Amino acid sequence: MKNIANIPDNGKQRVVIAGGGFAGLKLARALKKSRFQVVLLDKNNYHQFQPLFYQVATAGLEPSAISFPLRKVFQEQPDIHFRVATLDRVDTEKQVIRTDIGSLHYDYLVLALGATTNYFGNDNIRQNAVPMKSLTEAIDLRNTILSNFELALNETDAETRKSLLNIVIVGGGPTGVELAGALAEMKKYILPKDYPELDFNQMKISLLEASDKVLNGYSEASSRKAKAYLEKLDVEVRLKAMVKDYDGSQVMLEGADPLETHTLIWAAGVKANSVPGMPEEAAGRGGRLVVNEFTQVKGFDNIFAIGDMALMTADKKYPNGHPQVAQVAMQQAALLGKNLNSEKKKGFRYTDKGSLATVGRNLAVADLPGLRFQGFFAWVLWLFVHLMAILGVKNRLIVFINWAWSYFTYDQSLRLLINPKRKSSAKLVEEEV
Amino acid sequence: MKNIANIPDNGKQRVVIAGGGFAGLKLARALKKSRFQVVLLDKNNYHQFQPLFYQVATAGLEPSAISFPLRKVFQEQPDIHFRVATLDRVDTEKQVIRTDIGSLHYDYLVLALGATTNYFGNDNIRQNAVPMKSLTEAIDLRNTILSNFELALNETDAETRKSLLNIVIVGGGPTGVELAGALAEMKKYILPKDYPELDFNQMKISLLEASDKVLNGYSEASSRKAKAYLEKLDVEVRLKAMVKDYDGSQVMLEGADPLETHTLIWAAGVKANSVPGMPEEAAGRGGRLVVNEFTQVKGFDNIFAIGDMALMTADKKYPNGHPQVAQVAMQQAALLGKNLNSEKKKGFRYTDKGSLATVGRNLAVADLPGLRFQGFFAWVLWLFVHLMAILGVKNRLIVFINWAWSYFTYDQSLRLLINPKRKSSAKLVEEEV
Repeated sequence: MKNIANIPDNGKQRVVIAGGGFAGLKLARALKKSRFQVVLLDKNNYHQFQPLFYQVATAGLEPSAISFPLRKVFQEQPDIHFRVATLDRVDTEKQVIRTDIGSLHYDYLVLALGATTNYFGNDNIRQNAVPMKSLTEAIDLRNTILSNFELALNETDAETRKSLLNIVIVGGGPTGVELAGALAEMKKYILPKDYPELDFNQMKISLLEASDKVLNGYSEASSRKAKAYLEKLDVEVRLKAMVKDYDGSQVMLEGADPLETHTLIWAAGVKANSVPGMPEEAAGRGGRLVVNEFTQVKGFDNIFAIGDMALMTADKKYPNGHPQVAQVAMQQAALLGKNLNSEKKKGFRYTDKGSLATVGRNLAVADLPGLRFQGFFAWVLWLFVHLMAILGVKNRLIVFINWAWSYFTYDQSLRLLINPKRKSSAKLVEEEV
Repeated sequence: MKNIANIPDNGKQRVVIAGGGFAGLKLARALKKSRFQVVLLDKNNYHQFQPLFYQVATAGLEPSAISFPLRKVFQEQPDIHFRVATLDRVDTEKQVIRTDIGSLHYDYLVLALGATTNYFGNDNIRQNAVPMKSLTEAIDLRNTILSNFELALNETDAETRKSLLNIVIVGGGPTGVELAGALAEMKKYILPKDYPELDFNQMKISLLEASDKVLNGYSEASSRKAKAYLEKLDVEVRLKAMVKDYDGSQVMLEGADPLETHTLIWAAGVKANSVPGMPEEAAGRGGRLVVNEFTQVKGFDNIFAIGDMALMTADKKYPNGHPQVAQVAMQQAALLGKNLNSEKKKGFRYTDKGSLATVGRNLAVADLPGLRFQGFFAWVLWLFVHLMAILGVKNRLIVFINWAWSYFTYDQSLRLLINPKRKSSAKLVEEEV
């Protein structure tokens, strides 16, 4: 297999970073003035801001507002080489990775490929449900929902029409909760105006959670409050609800009647993206790679895993591994950057800055260290934190305008069904299918 | 075939408008307080602002900024029924249209389906070139260009790399000229920063025009100036250049050496979208439907054609038909709206408000009635006119910010390869493929 072209052997040691998410991007920037040659690989040419996917899915924001071209990030950075590529295999013996655009030797390999949707082996659900772990999936979800409304308009059978309107979300974590809330507000403020010919009292939004509370891992108060907010917005919240199967129109539940819906959103679990070539014994729970406190993958000195991929049990406060959130990913990346640059290595300790989740306008929950509050101020804090976290001043501006706009007009105007058809000539584009 | 569902027979006469472009949208709004029931059909759920497609293609604007959800337009309008549908056939005998979502009886039928790319029967070109007559095609073009740069990065053969960078545009009308200018500025200000590993002195942008000048139909001064502007931006402008064939990498020319490029943009001609079921004798040049001064299609009192579809020779000043531009479409729609609402009908006379075209920052040409100028002021006028023509205050705001941003930073930040994969469950979405 030929090498990835145009990456010089310039005597420097080469750090290959697989994945341009929060972890990979942070690390690549941390190595800016390092002694290394840095090669960053991602299957997209942009960095995506996961926390706001649900707003893209609910037509609140455009994809471009929460994604940022990776090349732009590194315009000023010398000897970094970014490539749009998918990692196919790691040859730990030869210290070579194989990708769809060629192979490449590494001195240090950093695996930061994140996590993907976990269907727990249920193929029916995988085929019929809509996931939400990438920007393109978020766009697909938007298109699915809007398409189903158009189909409902042309449906004569009342039952079928209802199930085209109904939306069932599985998974009561932040994604599920924020999505349910946003859809509920869409149903309340926008859809009746857009589709006067449809009766949205018939539409039911259900949130199913297997455990006994939503926002598991948040404080009791926040979980309770979030549930109350959702119900206030007329979302049916079902706790201890187990989904057994889904055929595209009927959700089968354990010990309950099936739910009728053409839109099942699956936010019930994630698993680490797998890396062919990594040894069995390195894999831990949820497919995560077992790492020591220096984020070195079990059995290797020169292969690291950071972010959602990594499973570290050395951090006293997190004996079962860290939560798979952006904060952990960025802190691990920052530390690894330091460790690679210096002689004496430091172990990782996660400092939890707290958790936020928003259900709807003026409705959010905040668990900060030693401080918990809900409602308007939590919501304002949520807006501020997320706005500041977005990459790029212009993106920030555009997001702010969109938010302010929908806040005051009770209306988003991005309800577009846009589907670029793939050009067979454009190889890369096809690969993303 | 079953009827389109949920459109009541309420005794009112039914006007069916096929197409939600400048003509169809304008007419639907003009019939707001009319005695008719209005049914509007479009294959998309949004209205698209064609004049700025080229900025979407060159990553200057997001699709959402120049498209507007049709349902939002009619929120306040009673007894209008919008459907996402494609017109398959007209049965003029029965006064029934057949679409992909069912059939429907009409009392009046207005055909406003616009024009599409004309490849003049060359299948190779149709298969290998990139058109730009729809928003999705504009996105495809953007993806094709960006993908080719990524491929060039991984290309070892110098010749192939060059042809991956080269861009050839066929057609020296406003679309071709504005596109060539935008690409030239991208090459000048952005690409070298984004792809420091590529040598953009190797990249050649060529504009091929069959006639002896660009912007045919504009004033001599404007044509000459536009050509000068393009050459100033280092675009190779070839007049009297005839493209014979294109295989995806080589453009065959009449009496000249072939050009090497992986990106051939075809803006060389349009033809009216065809409407199966309409009689032979109604079709005129370029597949346009022959209409009288009341935009009635030849041989019918109750079938009308407006916009790019219509070929009217009754207008003294335009014996060969009107130019296929938004101004004509909107003026015809406005008149037809009046005529349908009143007893005594008026014939159509086109008032030309002038033509504008922009090549790059501070570089534009303006032909106004009795007033012609080029350069900075033409450019400012172009910005203003287009900004005001965009539907929706927020879109206007977003477009303005994007323009101001790139003007002052010499940078757009929308260089994203985003490709939603189609959900097989979402019927409508598939149809748009």
